[in-house]
Amino acid sequence: MSKVIANMSMSLDGFIADPDDGIDQLFGWMGNGDVEVPTAVDWATFRMSPASAAYMREAMAGVGALMTGRHLFDITHGWGGTHPLGVPVVVVTHEPPADRPHADTFTFVGGVKEAVERAKQLAGEKDVVIASSKIAQQCLDAGLLDAISVDLVPVLLGEGVRWFENLSRTSVRLGNPTVIEGNGVTHLAYSVTGTS
Amino acid sequence: MSKVIANMSMSLDGFIADPDDGIDQLFGWMGNGDVEVPTAVDWATFRMSPASAAYMREAMAGVGALMTGRHLFDITHGWGGTHPLGVPVVVVTHEPPADRPHADTFTFVGGVKEAVERAKQLAGEKDVVIASSKIAQQCLDAGLLDAISVDLVPVLLGEGVRWFENLSRTSVRLGNPTVIEGNGVTHLAYSVTGTS
Repeated sequence: MSKVIANMSMSLDGFIADPDDGIDQLFGWMGNGDVEVPTAVDWATFRMSPASAAYMREAMAGVGALMTGRHLFDITHGWGGTHPLGVPVVVVTHEPPADRPHADTFTFVGGVKEAVERAKQLAGEKDVVIASSKIAQQCLDAGLLDAISVDLVPVLLGEGVRWFENLSRTSVRLGNPTVIEGNGVTHLAYSVTGTS
Repeated sequence: MSKVIANMSMSLDGFIADPDDGIDQLFGWMGNGDVEVPTAVDWATFRMSPASAAYMREAMAGVGALMTGRHLFDITHGWGGTHPLGVPVVVVTHEPPADRPHADTFTFVGGVKEAVERAKQLAGEKDVVIASSKIAQQCLDAGLLDAISVDLVPVLLGEGVRWFENLSRTSVRLGNPTVIEGNGVTHLAYSVTGTS
């Protein structure tokens, strides 16, 4: 059964980027080990601890489609046409680019509910992963999120972009996480069990 | 060697209390198990999962003194005169209560640096634990914090009091945590390794 999973690397104080959208202090665990994890693109090969590599391989094998927002699409320049995970990407935006770049990979959808439906179609039996703080929040508020997968990084950033900044629901209950201990990261996978 | 450790129960989105200082959704793990952990007071006995009970017994045995702020002292009414951990408490405040209540337990000190010195004297070989978001931040800013011990609770509160809200340092590096998986909590113990 396909699940909708929010996934981000997050500092212990809840930030997913510094004030300038920088992620250097949060993504170090993807390159601090000896185990190579190839991606769908030549320009990105992970080198991780054994534990993170095993976790990442399993996570990558389970992903059927990604959802993101227009901001991340823009600052990554559409990942050059192919996302490292090699799956279709649904970009949630009311302002799609006029030229509809890389139409084989990117679908532009206006609303979060329609975007989840489209991503699930694209993912088939596999999971939909949301790589965007705002889209994850909107899905959580709309009751569309099944799980939250946190790559918790041992750093306090003090300022920046928070993952869960503007939840309209106060109190979202999660299950006990599965825990995988990497180097420079603790992988915590939670299911969303209830909201109030 | 005595360490200065900040310890709090924290939601996955970084809150240590709801907007009304409520902690019901964060302290459930202290009462959701079968293993009794007695405290120094009759009115508080923990009932925890086996993993959390073992963790708590070890943590309690290592604590020689507590540090907190005036706010927590006030809203708990000075824990009725004895803190559940049964150790001396240093309250950091520039406005000590005129009657100096329970002077055998509580010491009131004006500055965070002097408070850490006093708490270390009281703790002897044991550790100083800081149970206050503001005091922990001040110690971190002053370079006085050795470790951060997070009882990470699987809930998103969306609003409330954040543990690390006003750090003056941007970027505090931590070591890989030791991880203990409880029920309704994941215990993560980090050392503070560097600041910038």
